[in-house]
Amino acid sequence: MKYKNTVEKWGMFEAACEGKTEGNPFRDFTISGSFRGEKEKVEAEGFYDGDGVYKVRFMPSFEGKYSFCIRGTFSDEIYEGSFLVTAPSKENHGPIRTANTYHFAYEDGTPYYPVGTTCYVWELQKDEKVIQTLESLKEAGFNKIRFCILPKHYDYNLGEPRSYPYEGTPMDSSILTEENFREYTGKTEGNCWDFERFCPEHFQNIENCILELQKLGVEADLIVMHPYDRWGFSRMTREQDDLYWNYVISRFSAFRNVWWSLANEYDLLDCKTQEDWEHYGNLLCQKDACGHLRSIHNCRPFYDYSRPWITHCSIQRQDLYKTAEMVQEWRIRYRKPVVLDEIAYEGNLPLGWGNITGEEMVRRFWEAFLRGGYAGHGETYWNPQGVLWWSHGGRLLGESWKRVRFLHKIMCETPGIGLKFKEMERDDICAVPEDFTLAQKTGYHLFYYSFMQPCFEKFYFDEDTEYQVEVIDTWNMVIENAGKFKGKFTIKLPGRQYMAIRIRKASQVV
Amino acid sequence: MKYKNTVEKWGMFEAACEGKTEGNPFRDFTISGSFRGEKEKVEAEGFYDGDGVYKVRFMPSFEGKYSFCIRGTFSDEIYEGSFLVTAPSKENHGPIRTANTYHFAYEDGTPYYPVGTTCYVWELQKDEKVIQTLESLKEAGFNKIRFCILPKHYDYNLGEPRSYPYEGTPMDSSILTEENFREYTGKTEGNCWDFERFCPEHFQNIENCILELQKLGVEADLIVMHPYDRWGFSRMTREQDDLYWNYVISRFSAFRNVWWSLANEYDLLDCKTQEDWEHYGNLLCQKDACGHLRSIHNCRPFYDYSRPWITHCSIQRQDLYKTAEMVQEWRIRYRKPVVLDEIAYEGNLPLGWGNITGEEMVRRFWEAFLRGGYAGHGETYWNPQGVLWWSHGGRLLGESWKRVRFLHKIMCETPGIGLKFKEMERDDICAVPEDFTLAQKTGYHLFYYSFMQPCFEKFYFDEDTEYQVEVIDTWNMVIENAGKFKGKFTIKLPGRQYMAIRIRKASQVV
Repeated sequence: MKYKNTVEKWGMFEAACEGKTEGNPFRDFTISGSFRGEKEKVEAEGFYDGDGVYKVRFMPSFEGKYSFCIRGTFSDEIYEGSFLVTAPSKENHGPIRTANTYHFAYEDGTPYYPVGTTCYVWELQKDEKVIQTLESLKEAGFNKIRFCILPKHYDYNLGEPRSYPYEGTPMDSSILTEENFREYTGKTEGNCWDFERFCPEHFQNIENCILELQKLGVEADLIVMHPYDRWGFSRMTREQDDLYWNYVISRFSAFRNVWWSLANEYDLLDCKTQEDWEHYGNLLCQKDACGHLRSIHNCRPFYDYSRPWITHCSIQRQDLYKTAEMVQEWRIRYRKPVVLDEIAYEGNLPLGWGNITGEEMVRRFWEAFLRGGYAGHGETYWNPQGVLWWSHGGRLLGESWKRVRFLHKIMCETPGIGLKFKEMERDDICAVPEDFTLAQKTGYHLFYYSFMQPCFEKFYFDEDTEYQVEVIDTWNMVIENAGKFKGKFTIKLPGRQYMAIRIRKASQVV
Repeated sequence: MKYKNTVEKWGMFEAACEGKTEGNPFRDFTISGSFRGEKEKVEAEGFYDGDGVYKVRFMPSFEGKYSFCIRGTFSDEIYEGSFLVTAPSKENHGPIRTANTYHFAYEDGTPYYPVGTTCYVWELQKDEKVIQTLESLKEAGFNKIRFCILPKHYDYNLGEPRSYPYEGTPMDSSILTEENFREYTGKTEGNCWDFERFCPEHFQNIENCILELQKLGVEADLIVMHPYDRWGFSRMTREQDDLYWNYVISRFSAFRNVWWSLANEYDLLDCKTQEDWEHYGNLLCQKDACGHLRSIHNCRPFYDYSRPWITHCSIQRQDLYKTAEMVQEWRIRYRKPVVLDEIAYEGNLPLGWGNITGEEMVRRFWEAFLRGGYAGHGETYWNPQGVLWWSHGGRLLGESWKRVRFLHKIMCETPGIGLKFKEMERDDICAVPEDFTLAQKTGYHLFYYSFMQPCFEKFYFDEDTEYQVEVIDTWNMVIENAGKFKGKFTIKLPGRQYMAIRIRKASQVV
């Protein structure tokens, strides 16, 4: 058996054993481990990784000495040993957890403000494109990316993926055109898959990508199921699905930067019922020892985000016009963090979800943040190569990503963790810190003027406190110090859209 | 008695008699007339116009000989005579009526597409400004203007009007500032008015303005009551209000271009009850022989527009974001024309209702039109002179008015009268003629892309019909002929916001 003697806290311990290869090792044998440290004891199931190798993984949450005991049904041997968990490295803050009901923090307490993007199958592109996507993510500073474990069949997604999750052969995709591709679905004949034999290379590639993301500080929001399918992966039996879910959980759950998205547009998966989703949610709760964040994404009707296994809302907008503005309502309804994982994409496609301007994308990010929630980015600019960030990754062509990076800096300067909307006498869009005591102490107010273009604004908080005022041009990414003010005061604005004003007690600004 | 022997159809016949001046002629005496032509018989109440002159007015709806009989309680004399009603002059199409449930037409059947603006007290400014406003209206091509009969007290409206509706003296307005003016309301002491003695000059000026508007083809949407008051005009007794309503109806209802708006923001008039509004509506139905359009405008809750005396919805938006997009719902709810008489103003005030961009204003106009309704314009650009189009008229400073004029041309090219929204397979914003037969015959489809920026769109109606396609840049006001197409076809777009595509059967385009 192979393993390393030391692993950092929230790093991944992995043990690899040689075992039997006869029959179907994916189905016929199991491996599991028991990990014991001073402060935790964790049971984990492992998986068959091909070539006679079985693996079991574990993410330790505490420093110090751990012992393990591993057994496989392919052998009578019991593997025992120990390893040392060292302090986390500087950039390792642990997995993301929900904090104060509506917001997120890393397990070490560092606030985490999601500024995510979507590239559905970036990891199934060729190496060159995968590397380009990682470079783009680094430059943009996104800290979450949503992507699918299974390949995607859709507009602009007719090509073959670099690998398949199962052994077998796909239908002949050379007959597909942008005109006819909708006729080919998961029901299409011509596919020949063994849904009980995984291709470990497919999953190994995804793991490499998850690790690369981890190095960049990017959370991997894994979409486990989705309906854009011509291969039949969305129409397997319950037994086949369970095999898939168990394989996915045992492979991925020990990576600290994983989130679970049970499905993209769950309501379009016409072979799955609510009972199925509850079952998968239950599987995750039982088998993901790391307790990663869990949600499920809608096309039209929301899943019931108040279900106890769901950690946060993962929302696709239900209205063409009102999107991020609904965050307050959704917070009240679900009392969980609200992440808008699809609010249309910056781009120019002939599709209502894929052709908003960069300005509108950024406006939605700010609206969501002011209301105590989080928007997600995506890009769909048409190009002759058919490489769209939204699905393939590659290079960012739009204008919003820079402004999202700018917003993230503002987010990180929030006192405590996160903002909430504050009703004002006027119709102002105003947010204050979620934590009441910190709000009082700092006097922090963030006003956002969205598509409105006032040429000045008047303020009054109290007679005596001195406030530091900044005028923020959210599009041109400029923060201007407007000075210190007391009592009633007026702040000039340029009479353009997308301006914000940040006000803090002068005594609290370092 | 003075009167003219001829009057054109939908013109105004007026008879003026000398009468008693003792006591209070406004309250103590009445005058009324009976008008009989071959096709109609109308009773009308008149009014005292000062200087011992009593008048009664009548708008004939048919050509030919009319006789009249006029009596006043100030005399035993009965005035009888006759006059000839001639054909209407070229620009005279009669008063506006509702047509086909959701749209408007002049009484002669010519479709009327409202593109209105709001200048609350333009007619109470000095002559020079009034003339400037008329020039601006002419240039902009607005065909409706909302304004108040009574003076206005509000932000940027602290000055004295050119005249008052009643004899008396106002409170000292020199003490008003933008900081304190809200403390002064209709309850304020210092006003001294005789609510039973009108100033005829005040109303004569308004009549001159209504006539000037008529020459320009502009409908005068008269706001009879409003809450922005420091004089007490919004807090009179029922008897005083009735005297006012009767005076207003008898003076203004024979002008063909009058519409009645019972109130602006009726729900802010804290002395008036629903019973009051129903009573005024009933008064109008009884006493306005011309049957002008009647509605009432809200601040927050809508009045119940399904009330039978209301001819159309006069709506102020209830949501900061979704405004014109709601027209479909309101059409279904009320089954009457939907006029959005306030959807925020183009401008830069520090007030959510007064600082949208020209682009957003125009977008709301198009959204309303595509959904089978009509938006209204207004401007609130701050300037050191404090002259804001929204209240004072003057010159237009914004960018939306030109695009509204452009839209009006498109509106006038609609087959039949008006559009309605058409659900498409995609999320398209598409409208077709309200009249199903005309929609079939012409193949007219208007697509609008709002804030979206597709770089092309695909269409398919049928295999055989040839369609003429135009690409419309609603902001740059350009209509480009894209050519003729059959079957499946693709139309290129520039990938900018605010584009539209108009499609008609080629055989129907002259």
